Amino acid sequence: MASEGTARTFPVRRLEAFIASALVALGLTEQDAAICATRMVEADLRGVDTHGIFRLPHYSQRIRANGINLRPTVRTIRENAVTALVDGDNAMGHVVMTYATQLAIKKAAESGLAWVGTRNGNHAGAGAVYSSMPLAQDMIGMYMTVANGNHMAPWGGVELILGTNPISFAVPAGTEPPVVLDIATTVTSYGKVKLAAQKGESIPVGWMIDRHGQPLTDPKRSSEGFLLPIGGYKGYGLNVIIGMLAGVLNGGAFGRNVVDFNKDLGARNNSGHMILAMRVDNFQSVESFKQEMDRSIREIRESKRMETVDRIWLPGEIEYYRMRDRLEHGVPLAPAVVASLQGLAAELKLADRLD
Amino acid sequence: MASEGTARTFPVRRLEAFIASALVALGLTEQDAAICATRMVEADLRGVDTHGIFRLPHYSQRIRANGINLRPTVRTIRENAVTALVDGDNAMGHVVMTYATQLAIKKAAESGLAWVGTRNGNHAGAGAVYSSMPLAQDMIGMYMTVANGNHMAPWGGVELILGTNPISFAVPAGTEPPVVLDIATTVTSYGKVKLAAQKGESIPVGWMIDRHGQPLTDPKRSSEGFLLPIGGYKGYGLNVIIGMLAGVLNGGAFGRNVVDFNKDLGARNNSGHMILAMRVDNFQSVESFKQEMDRSIREIRESKRMETVDRIWLPGEIEYYRMRDRLEHGVPLAPAVVASLQGLAAELKLADRLD
Repeated sequence: MASEGTARTFPVRRLEAFIASALVALGLTEQDAAICATRMVEADLRGVDTHGIFRLPHYSQRIRANGINLRPTVRTIRENAVTALVDGDNAMGHVVMTYATQLAIKKAAESGLAWVGTRNGNHAGAGAVYSSMPLAQDMIGMYMTVANGNHMAPWGGVELILGTNPISFAVPAGTEPPVVLDIATTVTSYGKVKLAAQKGESIPVGWMIDRHGQPLTDPKRSSEGFLLPIGGYKGYGLNVIIGMLAGVLNGGAFGRNVVDFNKDLGARNNSGHMILAMRVDNFQSVESFKQEMDRSIREIRESKRMETVDRIWLPGEIEYYRMRDRLEHGVPLAPAVVASLQGLAAELKLADRLD
Repeated sequence: MASEGTARTFPVRRLEAFIASALVALGLTEQDAAICATRMVEADLRGVDTHGIFRLPHYSQRIRANGINLRPTVRTIRENAVTALVDGDNAMGHVVMTYATQLAIKKAAESGLAWVGTRNGNHAGAGAVYSSMPLAQDMIGMYMTVANGNHMAPWGGVELILGTNPISFAVPAGTEPPVVLDIATTVTSYGKVKLAAQKGESIPVGWMIDRHGQPLTDPKRSSEGFLLPIGGYKGYGLNVIIGMLAGVLNGGAFGRNVVDFNKDLGARNNSGHMILAMRVDNFQSVESFKQEMDRSIREIRESKRMETVDRIWLPGEIEYYRMRDRLEHGVPLAPAVVASLQGLAAELKLADRLD
């Protein structure tokens, strides 16, 4: 999104304050608004521009359509030393997942390992934001969620009953950036297809197929087809597993009972997520693990490249350097995003209109 | 492999006895030989014909080259209630992973969840064999391993320092078959490329690229290129994460220190694996979970199909029915596999020559 027109750059604190004030104006508590603001800007810092402040107008629509519980009681409804099931009470997804991730980290700090599932939540932004939270405690993170809309069919099927169901992992390193993966199980996102349609461009073979299994390359015909999973039947299988572990296991939506959060603003999403946290010192000292991670990272980065390639990147490395850059220099927002936020600010009569 | 010529079919018990007697003749204890036989035939039952008895002649070569410790002490070297690090003492991989998986199941039965890592192991056959072991206790299984040979380059790289690093999940269901995924993170296996070369066939675009990033479709040129990961950079990232969680975390081989177990028969592999087991009743009753799984499975299976598609399969469903069929009717082995086993039987002077 940030590639269109000349971006304006905003300091992190200003965006956080803007989001928090908008969400308070919409009725959230100051505490919940602050949590959402932090998590959303963390997505922007990583460069996941589609999952940060860009979503605020949409979240605002859902809140005004009574799609979100503004006074939720997020609570643990089943629990032992190493697992928990959290009911999000239809709170903002960021609030539910922050609660769940902090709980997983607390349990893993005490026991070495924890798996926390959530149901009755909502879209929580970028998966890497949550899988990365355990890193500061020298823990590994794993995160999965059921996407809030179905744009994929089962392998061999034509009904849109599967989403982009993403999976994310974060592994700490020493002086090197942590290794952080955050991938949808589809080859691309539906957002990228819509963007190509807006620009009048065609999409590559391998992104979508039509109902006869033929490649679909005209994004204007996207409603006639569906996104393809990574690796064909392999990505389909991984997608279904994620749906079962983040959705079915927690009593969250998966399959036909997923609500398309763009089409139906007021319906309860019952979005399901899972987060795992595990201490690396279960297996070896933190110091030796980090040394080995650094060695392994450098081995990959410094291995021989294709002639046309300047650098081999580890998963999450580009996002890491972008985060450092944006923390220092601010977050660039595309003119269309700024305009949409300014519109929201005017509607909500916020002090900061992002002028 | 089983697709060439007319297969002969053997009862499960006969193949197990054959493998066990061969491994005892090669110097394994009766107990370890029996474990390997069971795990190998389980792969054959599922139809993972490349990871079962087919491998016995190769394992035999490794044993005779002193590549395997025949009197190992597989032991837990770090441990708490929910995690363990197992040193395989260079035992047969099946022995190490059976020990590790049983340990994970025991810990998960007591605590709800467990993650066991192994190092100093060897090739253990099919991943689904281990991820599926927790199913009988109404547990979810997750398994990862670092492959025993590098046929992939980092994304943008040309050096073969990554393997097919597979990941496997198993989720219990009720009256429906469990959902079991077992996928390499490469689009295809190096074995399939070699098979196409033998047959004089070309391979599809998307399986391999050459050192300039161009599609490689002549399998006879396979040494000039490398396997592609599923979903491009996404599969590369998942591959690296698996290497770090199954390899680096456990002190197992990953990257340049992976031994190609086909080329170097005598070298210690230091193969790393991980297995997670988790009780589903951490989150809801076993009964309600299984009901929801069955409902979700049927929803996917019964969703609308492409005109040319007879049935939508869930992950692991084909393998489940094949297992039932082979348990009843025996395991078909291709003539070349039978011949190679007969050769081994003659060398080892086994009572059963598979005549």
